[in-house]
Amino acid sequence: MSKINSTSVWHRLPCAIVLFQVALLVLFAIFVTYDEHTDAKSQTNLTDGTQNQVNEVFPVFLDVHAMIFIGFSFLYAFMKQYGFAGVAFNFLMANLTIQWAVIVQGFFHFYHDGKIHIGLYNILAAEFACAAILISFGAVLGKTSPAQLVVLILLEVPIYSTLEWVVGEFLKVSDVGGSIIIHVFAAFFGLTVTRVLYRSGLTQGHPKDGPSYQSDLLAMLGTLLLWVFWPTFNSAVALKGDDQHRAALHTFLSLSASTVTAFVISIVLDEKGKIKMAHIQNATLAGGVAIGAVADMMISPAGAITLGCLGGMACTLGFEYLTPFLAKKLKIQDQCGINNLHGIPGIISAIAGIVCILLSSEENYGLSLYETFPHMSPQVDDPRLQELLHDFPALKAGFGRRASDQALYQAAALAVTIATALVGGCLTGYTMKIPFLTQPTDDQCFSDEPYFKVPHTGEKEKALEKDFKNSELTCPFKENCV
Amino acid sequence: MSKINSTSVWHRLPCAIVLFQVALLVLFAIFVTYDEHTDAKSQTNLTDGTQNQVNEVFPVFLDVHAMIFIGFSFLYAFMKQYGFAGVAFNFLMANLTIQWAVIVQGFFHFYHDGKIHIGLYNILAAEFACAAILISFGAVLGKTSPAQLVVLILLEVPIYSTLEWVVGEFLKVSDVGGSIIIHVFAAFFGLTVTRVLYRSGLTQGHPKDGPSYQSDLLAMLGTLLLWVFWPTFNSAVALKGDDQHRAALHTFLSLSASTVTAFVISIVLDEKGKIKMAHIQNATLAGGVAIGAVADMMISPAGAITLGCLGGMACTLGFEYLTPFLAKKLKIQDQCGINNLHGIPGIISAIAGIVCILLSSEENYGLSLYETFPHMSPQVDDPRLQELLHDFPALKAGFGRRASDQALYQAAALAVTIATALVGGCLTGYTMKIPFLTQPTDDQCFSDEPYFKVPHTGEKEKALEKDFKNSELTCPFKENCV
Amino acid sequence: MSKINSTSVWHRLPCAIVLFQVALLVLFAIFVTYDEHTDAKSQTNLTDGTQNQVNEVFPVFLDVHAMIFIGFSFLYAFMKQYGFAGVAFNFLMANLTIQWAVIVQGFFHFYHDGKIHIGLYNILAAEFACAAILISFGAVLGKTSPAQLVVLILLEVPIYSTLEWVVGEFLKVSDVGGSIIIHVFAAFFGLTVTRVLYRSGLTQGHPKDGPSYQSDLLAMLGTLLLWVFWPTFNSAVALKGDDQHRAALHTFLSLSASTVTAFVISIVLDEKGKIKMAHIQNATLAGGVAIGAVADMMISPAGAITLGCLGGMACTLGFEYLTPFLAKKLKIQDQCGINNLHGIPGIISAIAGIVCILLSSEENYGLSLYETFPHMSPQVDDPRLQELLHDFPALKAGFGRRASDQALYQAAALAVTIATALVGGCLTGYTMKIPFLTQPTDDQCFSDEPYFKVPHTGEKEKALEKDFKNSELTCPFKENCV
Repeated sequence: MSKINSTSVWHRLPCAIVLFQVALLVLFAIFVTYDEHTDAKSQTNLTDGTQNQVNEVFPVFLDVHAMIFIGFSFLYAFMKQYGFAGVAFNFLMANLTIQWAVIVQGFFHFYHDGKIHIGLYNILAAEFACAAILISFGAVLGKTSPAQLVVLILLEVPIYSTLEWVVGEFLKVSDVGGSIIIHVFAAFFGLTVTRVLYRSGLTQGHPKDGPSYQSDLLAMLGTLLLWVFWPTFNSAVALKGDDQHRAALHTFLSLSASTVTAFVISIVLDEKGKIKMAHIQNATLAGGVAIGAVADMMISPAGAITLGCLGGMACTLGFEYLTPFLAKKLKIQDQCGINNLHGIPGIISAIAGIVCILLSSEENYGLSLYETFPHMSPQVDDPRLQELLHDFPALKAGFGRRASDQALYQAAALAVTIATALVGGCLTGYTMKIPFLTQPTDDQCFSDEPYFKVPHTGEKEKALEKDFKNSELTCPFKENCV
Repeated sequence: MSKINSTSVWHRLPCAIVLFQVALLVLFAIFVTYDEHTDAKSQTNLTDGTQNQVNEVFPVFLDVHAMIFIGFSFLYAFMKQYGFAGVAFNFLMANLTIQWAVIVQGFFHFYHDGKIHIGLYNILAAEFACAAILISFGAVLGKTSPAQLVVLILLEVPIYSTLEWVVGEFLKVSDVGGSIIIHVFAAFFGLTVTRVLYRSGLTQGHPKDGPSYQSDLLAMLGTLLLWVFWPTFNSAVALKGDDQHRAALHTFLSLSASTVTAFVISIVLDEKGKIKMAHIQNATLAGGVAIGAVADMMISPAGAITLGCLGGMACTLGFEYLTPFLAKKLKIQDQCGINNLHGIPGIISAIAGIVCILLSSEENYGLSLYETFPHMSPQVDDPRLQELLHDFPALKAGFGRRASDQALYQAAALAVTIATALVGGCLTGYTMKIPFLTQPTDDQCFSDEPYFKVPHTGEKEKALEKDFKNSELTCPFKENCV
Repeated sequence: MSKINSTSVWHRLPCAIVLFQVALLVLFAIFVTYDEHTDAKSQTNLTDGTQNQVNEVFPVFLDVHAMIFIGFSFLYAFMKQYGFAGVAFNFLMANLTIQWAVIVQGFFHFYHDGKIHIGLYNILAAEFACAAILISFGAVLGKTSPAQLVVLILLEVPIYSTLEWVVGEFLKVSDVGGSIIIHVFAAFFGLTVTRVLYRSGLTQGHPKDGPSYQSDLLAMLGTLLLWVFWPTFNSAVALKGDDQHRAALHTFLSLSASTVTAFVISIVLDEKGKIKMAHIQNATLAGGVAIGAVADMMISPAGAITLGCLGGMACTLGFEYLTPFLAKKLKIQDQCGINNLHGIPGIISAIAGIVCILLSSEENYGLSLYETFPHMSPQVDDPRLQELLHDFPALKAGFGRRASDQALYQAAALAVTIATALVGGCLTGYTMKIPFLTQPTDDQCFSDEPYFKVPHTGEKEKALEKDFKNSELTCPFKENCV
């Protein structure tokens, strides 16, 4: 790493952020306008305020909002001397990410008449993109400067949005909770970035790389928040009605099973049977990822529990065996174990999706098969469509895909996602290596000190306290003291 | 206690949990299927997704979810060296409880055609059962092994569900917030269990039985979360409309009054006027319990405030006088003071219910008297029913109970609840005593150490830190340091 | 300050609170009854429970509830030895405030037939008043006794409610997020109070006036909660539909921009580029204040971002330059910097409101101009009203104000607000000075000790631990220890 010039270091980060925010402001000013739900002009005398999209989107938005800004923030505050950075950088970067994603996703999906048209829904969609970026952060947490993270955002958002567009527009796969598109993508992207940024100096561990009692507890707050709101996350974009209902129900059951499993495996793995809080902080959430791609399908409640058990088991075992293996053999230093929580359970979910789709039929879905899998609905010119419309007038024509076709598309989506993540992560990782971005030295890793004014009870304060005129500070009401 | 064999100890807990989870999975696979709101097959072309039960249940579910998983978790993390266990065991046990309750309650209420039919509503109902179990935990917090807690769940869930069924099916009482069925039951159950598990070794106190500054603050997070969402809890199963509205309004007013009262009594009780955080963590919530059985009745806003004051007062005084008395005289060591927060205020609420019902009439409820108290509606063959139907076409026939009849049923429900709790708690307590369950010794109480890897800045870390090549870790950018 | 008599000190506070709560109970008993949404008698056979106001108000109420009771509580726990007081006094005082505000606002707005008629909506309105009072607290946090705070509440609630009534009833201004009426008022009120209570002894700093690592992190929880729910706060009273949608969208964008700006300015201000957590805890929220008065107007997404940047910038710079200046030159010791977070951004918002209204026209709002600004709708007898009604049958007659008229009213509202705050703050401050209220000495400031039993690992506990029979507390299962 190049020698850091002190004067310039601390100008680079604010410059990078200022430039980014100003560029975003300019893009908003030129391209972004209101959509039909937020534009006053689009309201007529017949407009019923209770039908505005805000009523449907707002509760979902708030839950996901809490996950992104409170859940991730405190989960990433698990290191003893990296709590400020864990919380605050998550806060900063999530905001840059969401603004940027509104623009990029806007060009893909909401651009017409020379403008991107937005409402609260766009913020929600951007928060899904943000989840992917924050997951990728986990691989390099504490080992990258904020300026590097800005670059990661700058590149990963368009890569993610392109993938999202390709998968949504051409492959049209089922992935209601984003297990493929968000979790698998983010995990492989992050792993690739951390591989490129490999640090030989950390192979023997780092004195600051670990939790304190308090940081472990605060991180649990993050975990529990994510855990509580995950049913919202997985059901947010499901079809209203029974599909959404199943998505929430399955997600709860799967999370519940992965929580139980995480405890069991954590106990079994330790020779004294002692539970590792890192397992509880992460593997309890694996059920939410493992169920993601199939949450709205007819997998049965027992199926949801089974997937949760698999996810929780894979995640806990991953922390114990896979993470050290990757670090040692493949030089992939996965700081938060995102491969265990997002990579492996995401792949489990993708495979579960393929299996479930192969087994899906009118027998177990009734005619709403063609609502849950709209692309399996007959094509416009198919006489079968007319038959179905007789019993199911609301049906829309689809692509006439058979279950096996759809399963192949699912597999293709997984492959495309992993490939995009590897290529994109490589590109991003090498870009993050440019010396200008002031990557911290090994010594500076996992520490708030380089970035924050950290409160100490230092010499100065102690002196001040001594000087202070009252020598009985702890018992101010003299008369009351024993 | 029997001598613990180290090898087997750490196999018993995971074995117990694995067996439990596998049994649950098998039960789900055999008996549990979707209900009409979650089954794709039950959807027809006329089904309107916005009418699915999920829309009504989901927001309530999320609030109660947050109470169970974040509120209780942090409230139970109030001890200085039992924070991991407080949070994590609450997390684990709540999940086992909910899965188990879905099965047991399912057989009582949702079983037909050889299957239990479930949707998100069942998870919500199971979380109410879970609240009862977690309250009972409070009596033995820190003094029981996880294996013992598993046994407690295994037994208390069916006992609670049976009681719930008997009271609901035969006594048909008014208890919208569950003050009788949840709070009184859970408190007396827990007190009985801790009586059976009496430890003479703890009569002189325990060095770890107490909070630290940080744990007291984190526990306040739990308290505040429970406090904020309690109006949802008490109004969740109220009749939609004005009944639900009153339940939420009264619960807020009662909680508010109990909070103010808790502070006052806490100050008055201490000779130096210093507030005990334990009072604030608990007695501020007593209003939610005290209002529970009458929250949807026409008790007037001032009535709600009065009940809150009574609850807060009884709870704070209970901590100061009743808990030590019970411990000393009756050998009931109530670790979290659940008698003060749930037992006494629950009984206050039950009595308030009897009084309010005796005072209820068409004069103060109008004809919706027969909606709030459906069993006071005239019987099918009563000519009075025809008269009422003239003015109130939506009215359903009931049991023609007079107010005094209903009041008697309320009293009977309280008696049955207490009796069930005492017998069930006794049975459960003695079962928890079997040596196989590795009850911790007195020394092991109130400590995370036996169960968790607790982070220390131990010798090893200090050595590592010394060895680490950079001696200026706290000031990484040399040029920037003073 | 007068010599404190120990015996009486600790009777004054509980007496003050008891008197207050009893008076409130009496007022509730005499004056408060149910409104048409909570009164059972008002329900007829045609009443549809799903149309009850509770359905609309409850979600909004819960979000604001969480802001008041969890958000403010933890934000005010940022000092290292004032955490209990920060959380607990906020909790206590918020409850007294809300009960009191229900009464006072009730007389202004909900009084008829000799009664104040309430439902959950009144609690929500009272929580808005409570926000103002809690903001004012910020100026004197840690420097006032609870008895003084009770007096502040007693006086500020009626002053705020009168102002709210005057502005709403006579000036009829646009201020959807309460930037003028809540934030500017509360800031100037608090600043005046702290000016009156000026302490020369604190000019050189105080050893306890500062955060610890843990308190800074917990305070971030408060910040993030406020941040996450602020879109609800600013859109709570907006017109249903597109107005509410815009309010939420703009608030998010503005908060997002102020967050980014807060980081940038904090870095730039420090010579080593180190971020101050106090800036992040506060200035990230400035966007919510800066957008408040215009959140529902057609300011464009870029406009919202611009306002957020301005707010974040002003707030961070305020902490660095304005707060010390005010303390030194004007003897205004603004403990939490409420002038920076609420005063200045509130004035920015008020000015933005004037500008936006001057620019508002049918061109950019369509005919819903007269919905967003109902007072600009033509008067009953204006022939223009008939024309408009042709295209927009739902339109209601207004005052026929031109944009420039409305802008003048906005300016008048700002002036009236500031004047009321200065006079009211003065009155309140001098009342708080009466010796009876036991203002803490300088030494007692910023410390939990005078008010709470603070847990220490003191001599007694250490002795107890030594005596305890097991000398291997940290390794209870001997067989398992290395």
